[in-house]
Amino acid sequence: MTHWLDALGLKAPVWQAPMAGSQHHVLAAAVSNAGGLGALPGAMLTPDGLRAMMRAVRERTSRAFQVNFFCHRPPAQDSDALQRWAQALQPYYRQLGLDATAIGQGAGRTPFSAEMLAVLREAPPAVVSFHFGLPAADLLQQVKALGCRVVSSATTVEEALWLEQHGVDAIVAQGLEAGGHRGMFLSNDLNSQQGLFVLLPQIARAVRVPVIAAGGIVTSDSVRAARALGASGVQVGTAFLKTPEATTSAVHRAALRSARGSDTALTVLFSGRPARGIINRLMRELGPLNPVAPAFPLATAGVAPLRSAAEAQGLGDFSPLWSGQHVAAARECSASELTHELIAAWHSLSG
Amino acid sequence: MTHWLDALGLKAPVWQAPMAGSQHHVLAAAVSNAGGLGALPGAMLTPDGLRAMMRAVRERTSRAFQVNFFCHRPPAQDSDALQRWAQALQPYYRQLGLDATAIGQGAGRTPFSAEMLAVLREAPPAVVSFHFGLPAADLLQQVKALGCRVVSSATTVEEALWLEQHGVDAIVAQGLEAGGHRGMFLSNDLNSQQGLFVLLPQIARAVRVPVIAAGGIVTSDSVRAARALGASGVQVGTAFLKTPEATTSAVHRAALRSARGSDTALTVLFSGRPARGIINRLMRELGPLNPVAPAFPLATAGVAPLRSAAEAQGLGDFSPLWSGQHVAAARECSASELTHELIAAWHSLSG
Repeated sequence: MTHWLDALGLKAPVWQAPMAGSQHHVLAAAVSNAGGLGALPGAMLTPDGLRAMMRAVRERTSRAFQVNFFCHRPPAQDSDALQRWAQALQPYYRQLGLDATAIGQGAGRTPFSAEMLAVLREAPPAVVSFHFGLPAADLLQQVKALGCRVVSSATTVEEALWLEQHGVDAIVAQGLEAGGHRGMFLSNDLNSQQGLFVLLPQIARAVRVPVIAAGGIVTSDSVRAARALGASGVQVGTAFLKTPEATTSAVHRAALRSARGSDTALTVLFSGRPARGIINRLMRELGPLNPVAPAFPLATAGVAPLRSAAEAQGLGDFSPLWSGQHVAAARECSASELTHELIAAWHSLSG
Repeated sequence: MTHWLDALGLKAPVWQAPMAGSQHHVLAAAVSNAGGLGALPGAMLTPDGLRAMMRAVRERTSRAFQVNFFCHRPPAQDSDALQRWAQALQPYYRQLGLDATAIGQGAGRTPFSAEMLAVLREAPPAVVSFHFGLPAADLLQQVKALGCRVVSSATTVEEALWLEQHGVDAIVAQGLEAGGHRGMFLSNDLNSQQGLFVLLPQIARAVRVPVIAAGGIVTSDSVRAARALGASGVQVGTAFLKTPEATTSAVHRAALRSARGSDTALTVLFSGRPARGIINRLMRELGPLNPVAPAFPLATAGVAPLRSAAEAQGLGDFSPLWSGQHVAAARECSASELTHELIAAWHSLSG
């Protein structure tokens, strides 16, 4: 059942979570070289950027890695919604001496496309993963035809069944604990989102494909627990954000260092979709789930100038400080050391 | 560290969760006789009722059991709030042909008291547990002076540290998955509530007393996972609700049989405090966290006549259908069989 996972040649199924905006090839290569599965986030890259990034990984490792894409449907432009958003942010623009009329497109995310597929075709990675469901059937078929294994995230049993029916080779069970964007795509009801302790065994029972546990996997104990709950592998994000190989910003690192699990919340303010980050000024003052944030990924542009200006002053007031709830348990070490530790934990269930 | 747990004489630290309104001495005795720790819920009993219940358990078992109490501060009567509540429920009263002016006190819950302490003194149980913090220091001291071990629930690391500082002998780490009332007492911010996968290891690292895992513990796998995450024991509720030894009502049993994890939500409608139950008509129509529900436990009285009338028609529209999120994994068997299975799981971590 998990044979294709074994065929990746990893020392154990320890996967690094793709983290757009906080890492590039250095982290991915470090994890793959240590025997795990490194990951490249493609959501914020152009096709040329992706090509360069994949080349850079391959200069550092000959081992398998994962490339990740978002596959949302870009929303219709809604100038009313954008105007309401600009208005909500107006006081902050004033305070920071910024011109709110100059809101640009900011760091948007583009969904997987034929152009990205063309880059993959040049030198297919072992694993291609998606967030927010799957791309259109023809695109998906072409990815599979390249020999890439296809993976996507499920946040409910229903999503896991849907993904299996649509042909994924493995499912990431994303517990409510996880940092960054919720992969939810069949429902936007946050009440449907469950912690890994119940989500993982339910998904593992419901599907035949291997299930990779994500959300709260930080320590050796959590690797062992995930395995006991039926995981065929684990995916780790927050703990890698703390490693020197990640490109995590200074304000983000400082927040990760002091945060406890209760300091995180789901918020839509930074992109328009719910994502877990450390509570900062913007989340506190607007309310993390304020519906004034426009549809994904349109919220990003309005916040981007505030973020830049505040970060220049060393403040994370307007930065998405993505983090899972188990952040306090993540010790600071190299990506290689962390990978080795988690691999050892995978092989020591009885420990 | 866990020596007093061992001294209880259990076959393994498998505790039955006290479930006021859905069980009495039969379930408690069955679990204790099977080698676990049975529990009696005292929150809805009079002192005389408690005395009778404890006698009834002892007629069926000579083994250790737990007695549980709520320890909330009764709220000031607030006739405005009660009136708003009655108004919100008015359409349902009309529909069911009930007289809303006849709302009584209903099935209230009384906090632990000197009267209850007097009953314990007659024949102290091995373990006394509290929900919503701890009783006043003098009462607590008198419970400890009886030789009872004192336990309470923590839903955050902060609450666990507080409980340890106030002298508990063990802490129940209540994950967000758990059915029934959240034990939260230092904060009423639901965002602070975490799933067991991260709550348990964080609490286990933070305190020296043994930690009992609760929330989502239903299967052998979940027992093993809890142990891997640092639990010194497990406490199981929902799975016991399905056993014939529980007094779970017919509408409640039917709901438990068909529910999936995503069918539950936290609601304040049945008591005034957040508790997890299967989503029913009242929760759907008023919104499960509608602030019109008055302070705990005053919300109960208004719903009680609706509940009775609907249940008489075989409907759970107004009943608190308490359930944890892992409900679908709980198979139907006897309490004794379930206890044996979970005990075996505890001893087979490497399985």
